[in-house]
This record gives sequence, C-alpha cells and structure tokens, in this order.
Amino acid sequence: MAGMIRKGERNLITDVAGLRVGQAEDAAARTGVTVLLADEPMMAASDVRGGAPGTRDVLGLDAVPLVDAVDAMVLSGGSAFGLDAPSGVQQYLKERERGYRIAPGLPPVPIVAGAILFDLANGGDKEWGEEPPYRALGKRAAANADRNFKLGNAGAGFGALAGAYKGGLGSVSCVSDDGTVGALVAVNSVGSPIMPGSDAFWAWPYEQDGEFGGRMPKKRAGLELPSDMKGAVRPAANTTIAIVATDVELTTLELRRIAIMATDGFARSLRPVHTPFDGDLVTVVSTARHKPSEPRPLTVLRLGHMAADCLARAIARGVYEAETLGDFRSYRDTFP
Amino acid sequence: MAGMIRKGERNLITDVAGLRVGQAEDAAARTGVTVLLADEPMMAASDVRGGAPGTRDVLGLDAVPLVDAVDAMVLSGGSAFGLDAPSGVQQYLKERERGYRIAPGLPPVPIVAGAILFDLANGGDKEWGEEPPYRALGKRAAANADRNFKLGNAGAGFGALAGAYKGGLGSVSCVSDDGTVGALVAVNSVGSPIMPGSDAFWAWPYEQDGEFGGRMPKKRAGLELPSDMKGAVRPAANTTIAIVATDVELTTLELRRIAIMATDGFARSLRPVHTPFDGDLVTVVSTARHKPSEPRPLTVLRLGHMAADCLARAIARGVYEAETLGDFRSYRDTFP
Repeated sequence: MAGMIRKGERNLITDVAGLRVGQAEDAAARTGVTVLLADEPMMAASDVRGGAPGTRDVLGLDAVPLVDAVDAMVLSGGSAFGLDAPSGVQQYLKERERGYRIAPGLPPVPIVAGAILFDLANGGDKEWGEEPPYRALGKRAAANADRNFKLGNAGAGFGALAGAYKGGLGSVSCVSDDGTVGALVAVNSVGSPIMPGSDAFWAWPYEQDGEFGGRMPKKRAGLELPSDMKGAVRPAANTTIAIVATDVELTTLELRRIAIMATDGFARSLRPVHTPFDGDLVTVVSTARHKPSEPRPLTVLRLGHMAADCLARAIARGVYEAETLGDFRSYRDTFP
Repeated sequence: MAGMIRKGERNLITDVAGLRVGQAEDAAARTGVTVLLADEPMMAASDVRGGAPGTRDVLGLDAVPLVDAVDAMVLSGGSAFGLDAPSGVQQYLKERERGYRIAPGLPPVPIVAGAILFDLANGGDKEWGEEPPYRALGKRAAANADRNFKLGNAGAGFGALAGAYKGGLGSVSCVSDDGTVGALVAVNSVGSPIMPGSDAFWAWPYEQDGEFGGRMPKKRAGLELPSDMKGAVRPAANTTIAIVATDVELTTLELRRIAIMATDGFARSLRPVHTPFDGDLVTVVSTARHKPSEPRPLTVLRLGHMAADCLARAIARGVYEAETLGDFRSYRDTFP
C-alpha cells in the first residue's frame, strides 16, 4: 500500500541508500562534472526527449541491451567535449576493480553512462589546449563522492543557465512506504523556470518547506513565449539532464515507465521545454534494495508520480540555489 | 517572427482552415466517436506515451512510413472494439473517392488513423450483439462533420471519465503570426485534472477568457497522489487521446518534435499522467497551407509551445464542458 509521501531526511538523491554524489569544477572555464556513484551496479533506463541530446552509454530499451546496469552515471558540462568525463570515472572505478565481469581472468569493465549540457557560451575560458578538462574533472568528481554535496553553482551546474537566470545543480528526495525516490539535475534550459510576470517557480505546487524560496503565483501565465527564456542568440546553449534514483527493485521496462512519468516533471517546471534546442533527458536508476509491492503496475504508478514531483522540485531548487556568475544573474539576485 | 499569441475565433481545432469535426454517439452504450476530416490529406506524426495505448494506422516515425499523410483521424470509445471506427470513416471517404492513389486505375485507399479510450466500465449497455457499434458510429460521425461541434459529453468523450469526474471532449485554438494551432482531445485519465484541495484546474495558468470556469488555486498541491484520481478498482478504465492541428507546412520530423512538446500539455493539466494504465497519445497533423518562417527550428519551438498550451487548455475544457452521467458527476456539479 501507498504510505504518506514526505520529503527525505537529507532532501538529496543520496537519501537513496548506497548512492554518493561527487563533483568537480574548473572555475576559469566555468564548467564542471557531477557523478552519481553506487555501491553496487544500478539497473538503468532512460527517456531522451530533447531535440539535441549528447549521451554516452545511455541505456534505453531500443538496443535490448546485454548489460542493463551501470556502475555510475555522469552529468557534465562541455557539450560533446564533456563526453570525456565518464572516461575519468571509469579510470577511478577500474583502479578499485569495479565493473562488469565478462569472464574470469579478464579485467572488469566499469559501465559509466553520461549526458552533457552546453555551457561553451557562458563566458568561461574554453581555450584548454591539447586535452579538454573533462576526463580529469570526472576522475576528481568520483574521488569526491559523498552523501552530502553542494547545489547551485556546482558540478555540471557550475556554468549552467536556465532561461535568463543562472542555472545550477538541483536535488531533492521523497519517501513513502513504497521506498525512496531522489532526483539530481543540472538545469540549463531554453525555457524559463519562472511563471511569467511573477517571482514564483512553475514548480511551486510541489514545493516542500520553502526549499526554493516559498513564493506563490498571483496571476495567469498568458499564451506568449516568456520574455525570460533564452533568446535566439544562443540557440544551442541549452539542455536539462537528470537522474532519478529509487531503491525499489524493478525491471528495465518498469524503470522506463518511471522515466516517462519523470519527464512530466520537466513539463511542470520549465516552459517551453523539450524544444529543438534542448537535449533533455532523464535516466532512472535503481539500487534494488527492496521488492515492489503487488500489484506491481500500481507501485510503478506511485513511484512514477513521486519521480515526476521530485524532478520538478529538483529543477526549481537547482535554479534557486545558483549564484550570480559574470553576466548571468541568479534567481535570488533577480527577486531578492 | 513570432507575433502575439491569441485565442482563435471559434476556439476550436476547426480554426485551422480545411478541417471539420464530426461526432456520433450511442447513448445507451454510453460511447461515441469523434472524427477529424481534412479537405486534403494531412501530414501526421504521433507521440505515444501511455502504458496501454490502442491505435490503428497511427503514424510514428519508427516505421519510416511510405505514406506520411492521413485523410482523417478518429478518436473513439470502446477500447479495442473502437478500432472499428476508422473502417466506417474509410467507407464514407471511399464513397467520395478520397484516398491514397497507389496507381492509375486502382481505387484510392483512404488512410484513416485512429486511437481509442476505455469506456467499457462506465455503466452503459455493452451487449451490442453480433457487431460492435463503432463502424456505424464512425460513418455517421464523418457524415456529421462541420466546423462547429459539441464539447463535453460528445463523440469519443461521451462516456469518458477524468479521474473522479465526468470526462469529455475538449477543443481550443490559438493563432499567431506563425499560423494557427488547434487541439482536440477526449479526456479519460487515471489522474485528476484538478489541483488537490481546490476547484482550480491544473491548466489554470493557460486559461483564456474563462473558457473553463476561471478558478485559480490558493494553495500548494502536496506530494500525495490525489484523492480524486481513479482508484485501483478500474485499472484499465483510462486514456487521454489527442490531436493537435496546424496550418504550417512541416516535415514529419518537425511534426514529431511538436508532438513531443504537445505531450507536455498532458503533464501540465493532469496528475498523475502517462501511468501504466493510461494509453495517452497525441497525433499532430498539418494542413500545410503556409510555409514556416526561417530559421525553421525556432518556428518549430514556437508552434510546439502553442501546441502544449492548447492541449493543456483543451483537456481542462473537455472536463469543464462535460455533464453528469449516471454515477459520474461533472466538474460543474461538483464545484457549483
């Protein structure tokens, strides 16, 4: 049976037991990497809905994959250069003999999925010479992994922009009798997280205990595209990439359904979203610590509902926690 | 350039020139059929996101179809029995020599796509004997096609249930310098269209001129599943099926992107949505009357934004216009 749904203790994705988050940044380049590490391989399924995604080893269902579990999942800045970040995490894991064991005697192969966002036009110094910084950032991020981690201008959210506001890294969690659900997201959207003519986040209906400032809307949004979305001047400078985690043991198909429902959290916290210029995706992972209660489709419905709410809250929180960086003003400096 | 976005003249999908909507109902069986007819074949692309869809000749991109245009699109009650409804529409069109011309001398083949919703548990008399009523309803609906049509308990929405409320058929439109966008939807969701503890529709931010009652929310939604969703007692009695139409000439890939963005309108008007028990889908059609302005991806972004807002409004309007039927109370009787 479904129990009361409440905010988790840390209100971070690491409320899901067995998960840690590590981050590393290059302040001069205004970019960074966030990695979700698991004590044991995680089942994973993804839902890619943006028009301009950049991914590495992201496991959908189309491939009917042999390996349906990952050792880590990486969110990175750097656009396609950031697809190096999983290499650094792989190296970190290889040194600890973690990975998929193909056969006895062969070295294990760490399976590290990754998704990137575009932060190349944020004013940072991108003249990094022979090798982009992302492999090294990935390894440093993995070494930093902890159950506590910084939100806002951190990791993959360091140089992110959400509409006209400074974007950032967000995370929340919730708990019910079914289990724990957490979300982790780097918000770098074309669309705005704020209701037009207002200081309220689109995600306001789901807010818990003022976790993103506690403002409520007073009027309708109207039909126009918002004036605080990113302009046509940076048509590729976008993408919101997210991870949802749960401790409930589910099949890949069930995780895929939860990913589809989690995607609704994007729609409830950003407008417009899933545009041709966004590379939006969500990967749902499971640490498989608890069996789901029967009937399973109802458990999937409840976990999908929790996932959608968590993702909407995490997106707002990532923007709320961000700090002004160069020309890019934070939400809190815009609406003090 | 984007112009001001405003409600269309009729505020119906038929504000898109060249389209008509026909409907037919079987009041005893509490079911019906809605058909969208076009003067010329329409380009079409779909986005199927529910866990329990029922479709006929719905054109996605997976098939890389030879025929990427349809003569009509049908929304029907009757669960899988309703997949007969396109047959009746085909017959209507065949008698008028409409259809895809494979070769000279051969009869044209009317291409009629269809999607169904489950209304078999709504208390209507489903003992229809030798043949389900849907083929005949499809033909009658096509014969009734007009630019004006009824909302609420009409066509595919006749016997629909939206969460704990009587569901129905909804439609709205909007117009900008880019062109016209309209939505048509039969709302039969597991999830609720109403914010918890409130008489406001989730779609309230997008409402135009009190088209669904003009209520606004006064408090947050909380994290629980809503008490006014459908219970576990009718786990298959669901599905919201939608059509979005535009007069802008687009490629199938561009229509598919607009379908993905339109799907966000489901997330903004129903909660939870896209559950394992819903067969939610949206088909986007184009009458191709106007060329898009350059750059095309920005036009797609604007049309996708219009599509998402229209679909959220149409869903709320379908529920608002519905009338109490048997045990199923309407929104307006619940919140007088």
